[in-house]
Amino acid sequence: MTADLLSLVDIEAAHQRIKSNIVRTPLIYHEPFSQRFGAKLHFKAENLQHVGAFKARGALNAVLMLDDATASQGVVTHSSGNHAAALARAAKVREISAHVVMPDNSAKNKIAAVRSYGIEPIFCEPDAESREETAEKVRLETGATLVHPYDDPHVMAGQGTVGLEILEQLPNVETIIVPVGGGGLLAGILTAVKSSRSDIKVIAAEPELADDTARSLRSGQREDPLRYDTVADGLRTPVGENTFPIIRRLVDDIILVSEGEIRSAMRAMAVSARLVVEPSGAVGFAALASAHERFAGQQVAMVLTGGNLDFGDYQLGHDVGENV
Amino acid sequence: MTADLLSLVDIEAAHQRIKSNIVRTPLIYHEPFSQRFGAKLHFKAENLQHVGAFKARGALNAVLMLDDATASQGVVTHSSGNHAAALARAAKVREISAHVVMPDNSAKNKIAAVRSYGIEPIFCEPDAESREETAEKVRLETGATLVHPYDDPHVMAGQGTVGLEILEQLPNVETIIVPVGGGGLLAGILTAVKSSRSDIKVIAAEPELADDTARSLRSGQREDPLRYDTVADGLRTPVGENTFPIIRRLVDDIILVSEGEIRSAMRAMAVSARLVVEPSGAVGFAALASAHERFAGQQVAMVLTGGNLDFGDYQLGHDVGENV
Repeated sequence: MTADLLSLVDIEAAHQRIKSNIVRTPLIYHEPFSQRFGAKLHFKAENLQHVGAFKARGALNAVLMLDDATASQGVVTHSSGNHAAALARAAKVREISAHVVMPDNSAKNKIAAVRSYGIEPIFCEPDAESREETAEKVRLETGATLVHPYDDPHVMAGQGTVGLEILEQLPNVETIIVPVGGGGLLAGILTAVKSSRSDIKVIAAEPELADDTARSLRSGQREDPLRYDTVADGLRTPVGENTFPIIRRLVDDIILVSEGEIRSAMRAMAVSARLVVEPSGAVGFAALASAHERFAGQQVAMVLTGGNLDFGDYQLGHDVGENV
Repeated sequence: MTADLLSLVDIEAAHQRIKSNIVRTPLIYHEPFSQRFGAKLHFKAENLQHVGAFKARGALNAVLMLDDATASQGVVTHSSGNHAAALARAAKVREISAHVVMPDNSAKNKIAAVRSYGIEPIFCEPDAESREETAEKVRLETGATLVHPYDDPHVMAGQGTVGLEILEQLPNVETIIVPVGGGGLLAGILTAVKSSRSDIKVIAAEPELADDTARSLRSGQREDPLRYDTVADGLRTPVGENTFPIIRRLVDDIILVSEGEIRSAMRAMAVSARLVVEPSGAVGFAALASAHERFAGQQVAMVLTGGNLDFGDYQLGHDVGENV
């Protein structure tokens, strides 16, 4: 791909297109952590976004970009996570049909979220082949348009609106920390921020157990994930074919975090910031906490990407307050 | 007291005085609950305030109102709850000393919050007499000024700034729902709102197990609490001598909620709104949920008063999603 696949103009247009139908999430300054870590820390609370994740932005932009004839055929995706609910909601906003293929081992709360928009998921086997085959079958049968969770330029443009809002909310921001899975959010924010404010550092944060982006940045080409078992379930995806070139060109650095650091960060968000953040969403704060001396004295924004915690799996009360 | 004890002018002055040192908390629109309950529902997220509660406002205003000579003698209060940390923080902002008397059975997280501001609590017996005697002894020994958690007009003025912000953030608000314990927040919001916008309804929300305000409104005079065991620990206080006349004159109605409704509301906030809210803080939403047909079609703001949950007591994961 070329840099032209995604531009600041696309992201600004996406913001105009979606902003009446998304939450302008608050950027929340946190005093105790700022004092503790010696930097001014602000949380971009996308856990308070519709469907509880930034994914609402990209899915809505992609759905609103379809021409009427195409839109009338509906949309389809395969996702075990927040993009599934985001696409269901976007389809409801546009009043078109959506088909959501989900692995049959998806978390109950993610399945319930899709159903809350009146859509019954189509279940498939958990492997990538089954997901793609099932989605492709639905696409051929219905004529629906596939909306990829991150490698679609319209989705990336929608996610990039998070970056525009941070610039508006904190014009003197010096560093933005963004979790990376497939890279749609990171590529969007990089494009939004670096186009106008190349002085701002954008740092990726990735679980050690899902370090394909870090390895890809080292080797200069997309490397495959080695395992799919990080607690940060939203980041168990390979960096995208379209997102990686943007990330490679623009990102300033990447910080890897351990599973324990992610769990501690998630608890710290609940206990001290009073925000329910899912493991993937806490990866940015985990990176800050693990490398805070690098950000001393800076204005730092971290994106809390989502808050759809499976409360059956995470007893937030367990050992809280001990780690952070 | 007369109505002159607290005026809109006092609250506007308080806002100017404190606003650079408090969080302008977001007013968060919640789409799924709005659709479910048939009203436009907005949460004023004071759980995201400094010290995790609106109490940061009133304590800071009271401390900043002291003249220099008085301030130099320090401040003192007795509190088992959020006012203790709020006063500790306010004293730190002004760089004066604070003495905080806490019952020796106070929740661990509330004690830790006070200590996080560098102040060691003075422990006393849990009964009201011991608390007041101990605080009075400290006052006489140190010359510190007592800052009451709710019955102090400067504290009430600070809490009323929540009302000013709601009016700015949602000018077309039609109903505001406010939990009531001692009544400082309610009296402040009533004064702020009714002075300029008498068309807006302000509804109190109170636990059935701490219904002294509801009974007081019926009888026309302050009635004693009958028990102190509601799960909403922040509301286990009698309505104030100074707050009650304002509430009696201005409040539109009061809704009582059961313990189960409070617990359900707290879980719903965590699971669906991704906000950690303590039991007292969820009482407003519990009232809305229990009487939602009264608010059909309206723009409703609810104050989530605080988020200092003792995670040892509340396993948010338990049976979530079943009730709301």
